[in-house]
Amino acid sequence: MGSVTGSLDRAGCEWLQYDYGSALMAGTRPASFTMWRYRKLLPVPDGPVRYPMPIGGTPLLSVPALRKASGTPHLWIKDETRNPSASNKDRATALVIEDGLRRGVGTITTASTGNAAVATAVGAAAAGMRAVIFVSTDCQPDKLALMTQARAWVFRVPAGYAAAVDLSRAAARAFGWLDRNTGANPFTIEAKKTVAFEVWEQLGRRLPDAMIVPVGDGPTLVALDKGFAELVSCGLATRQPRLIGVQAESCQPLVRAWSGVPAGPADLNPAGTAADGIAVVRPAIGDAVLDAVRRSGGSLLAVTESALLSAVATLAGRAGVGAEPAGAAALAGLECAVERGLVDRLETTVLLVTGREVKAGGAPPGAGRVAVAQGLDEVERALAGEC
Amino acid sequence: MGSVTGSLDRAGCEWLQYDYGSALMAGTRPASFTMWRYRKLLPVPDGPVRYPMPIGGTPLLSVPALRKASGTPHLWIKDETRNPSASNKDRATALVIEDGLRRGVGTITTASTGNAAVATAVGAAAAGMRAVIFVSTDCQPDKLALMTQARAWVFRVPAGYAAAVDLSRAAARAFGWLDRNTGANPFTIEAKKTVAFEVWEQLGRRLPDAMIVPVGDGPTLVALDKGFAELVSCGLATRQPRLIGVQAESCQPLVRAWSGVPAGPADLNPAGTAADGIAVVRPAIGDAVLDAVRRSGGSLLAVTESALLSAVATLAGRAGVGAEPAGAAALAGLECAVERGLVDRLETTVLLVTGREVKAGGAPPGAGRVAVAQGLDEVERALAGEC
Ligand SMILES: Cc1ncc(COP(=O)(O)O)c(C=O)c1O
Ligand SMILES: Cc1ncc(COP(=O)(O)O)c(C=O)c1O
Repeated sequence: MGSVTGSLDRAGCEWLQYDYGSALMAGTRPASFTMWRYRKLLPVPDGPVRYPMPIGGTPLLSVPALRKASGTPHLWIKDETRNPSASNKDRATALVIEDGLRRGVGTITTASTGNAAVATAVGAAAAGMRAVIFVSTDCQPDKLALMTQARAWVFRVPAGYAAAVDLSRAAARAFGWLDRNTGANPFTIEAKKTVAFEVWEQLGRRLPDAMIVPVGDGPTLVALDKGFAELVSCGLATRQPRLIGVQAESCQPLVRAWSGVPAGPADLNPAGTAADGIAVVRPAIGDAVLDAVRRSGGSLLAVTESALLSAVATLAGRAGVGAEPAGAAALAGLECAVERGLVDRLETTVLLVTGREVKAGGAPPGAGRVAVAQGLDEVERALAGEC
Repeated sequence: MGSVTGSLDRAGCEWLQYDYGSALMAGTRPASFTMWRYRKLLPVPDGPVRYPMPIGGTPLLSVPALRKASGTPHLWIKDETRNPSASNKDRATALVIEDGLRRGVGTITTASTGNAAVATAVGAAAAGMRAVIFVSTDCQPDKLALMTQARAWVFRVPAGYAAAVDLSRAAARAFGWLDRNTGANPFTIEAKKTVAFEVWEQLGRRLPDAMIVPVGDGPTLVALDKGFAELVSCGLATRQPRLIGVQAESCQPLVRAWSGVPAGPADLNPAGTAADGIAVVRPAIGDAVLDAVRRSGGSLLAVTESALLSAVATLAGRAGVGAEPAGAAALAGLECAVERGLVDRLETTVLLVTGREVKAGGAPPGAGRVAVAQGLDEVERALAGEC
């Protein structure tokens, strides 16, 4: 413990005093805990890590006040908002860029209108790499500002999101860029599986009974499945936790597929939810989600808008965790899962809080690097005039 | 390194395969690096830490792209935005609440319109404590939403910020609450000094030549001075780094005091800067700032609005660090300090990035716990009807 031996006045300020000596400071080096801890299970060759920001090693919170309020004594929150761009997308970005730095590739591309694009822009900026992002024309100005502030090139694709994905992938092939599109590059799954390893270690080399996860395109959940499966393959665990995927009621293609009910228009309306991160009509790796959930003995469920917004408030008010609506979906899913008997209140359950929104620090949306593109030639022309 | 031995198709998804075995996972426990590492130099008695969120242990970034762009090969960024409420205020909040949890005090109060209030609300929520915040009536709705979403009571004080401070301090005395007001509780300095310890450890038990820091009320800079002084007192370092404090041109009371030029109205106009966190007309511990800067051989300087905004953009675009204008002030100060010969480009210099703004996840500003108060009786009445 720290023994305060007195206090003195320093220009009007009270300074507590201790019995100073070198023994008051630990002799060991402070450890860093990042996703590179799991390098033997990542496609990263030997040699120093080049990616300049620490990623992963996010806290597993014991949330005493939330446990008490919700009667779930063994609830945990894996808080991915503590990553540099405040979402789990930073993990995938880091691994893809690390690979590029080693191979001398200077540009990374992705299509996305949300956190993956922001993470890509931010990670590329830190690594001194060029980011080229493709978005649909309805991309939010706030998100756009975050991307351009991080010096990314942003191409708005009038034909919509699917066309943006096609263009990004075509550009990656044509120009030899890193392809960070969700579901396209297996490295994104490799990176995100480290969340499973961390949870296992943070629980003292034990797995939870269940893990509840927001599902959009699917990589977050599928990567957890792979991580847990690898712990079993390594002989470090005997069974995988049940994976429970959560979607928003107004955009729930995988919940419908899971329950065998055909999805109607009201189930496929991304504009109907504030949880834009999980409002995906055609999930990139939906089949893999269904497969992973089934094998784990889990389930998929949909939550209402009011449940999502109240989960945001509960996370802030009972756990001190800031989350965007998609990021809070797991907590909304918890109540629902308990009611349906998918999770028992006494089980060890981990909620994955995937992200929160940050502000583009008072900067005007930089227009210099935003352009409209319908084909590769327009992309090439714009980049040729690069400053 | 990870040896990928093959890949398999899992429901349409490519899964890389490894030569699985328990040796692929480290046998040691992952370390955690938080400010509690420095407990022997903190006023925290023995026994387990009760505060439920990990705080501190923030990265010291080597910023290769920024170094290259600015010709400063030994520049570092201490990134305090990685704390739970995204600013260095989380450290002070954690220590004050830890003390309260041990002494059985259930309420914490502060006056602030910015990050300290948000950090207090968030920390109290996580710890299951009540937060009572006093703000002036012009407090930004966004900040208010962050506070109320975290279930804080917020009292708007019509007579302005100074009256809010008085009321908060009077309430703490009258009701036995924890007083987290800047400069009032010596624990806030104790907590923030851990930044100095971390920088020293992260540089391999070496001190930088200079550290550049935004200055509002003063505790951030004064706490660094105390931390560095304690390393010297412990016999672990021989001399302290030069401390360079940065204020916004439109609100620079301490820069004026430092240079002996009387401050005119244009120097004391908080509304003139986007850097609201450092726009303080009467700094709570200004004398201590001047004293610390003088003893360290440092200086105080003012930066323009355009330098602040361009620093925000440069941090995002060259370091992948999101910062609010006040949080980016140190980078704005760097160029100015180099020009004036206060810092040499080849020196080891650490910029403290103090914070960034987060969004209150899509929730409507909760009105339930916001009230107007001019005296203690109104506070008491409002809280008596608490739900
Ligand atoms: C905050 C947030 N949560 C969850 C998801 C869904 O993740 P996935 O697409 O991997 O299913 C996203 C994806 O954008 C997200 O941004
Ligand atoms: C982002 C940010 N930077 C700097 C400061 C200034 O810190 P201090 O008041 O300790 O001088 C503040 C204080 O509110 C802040 O919010």
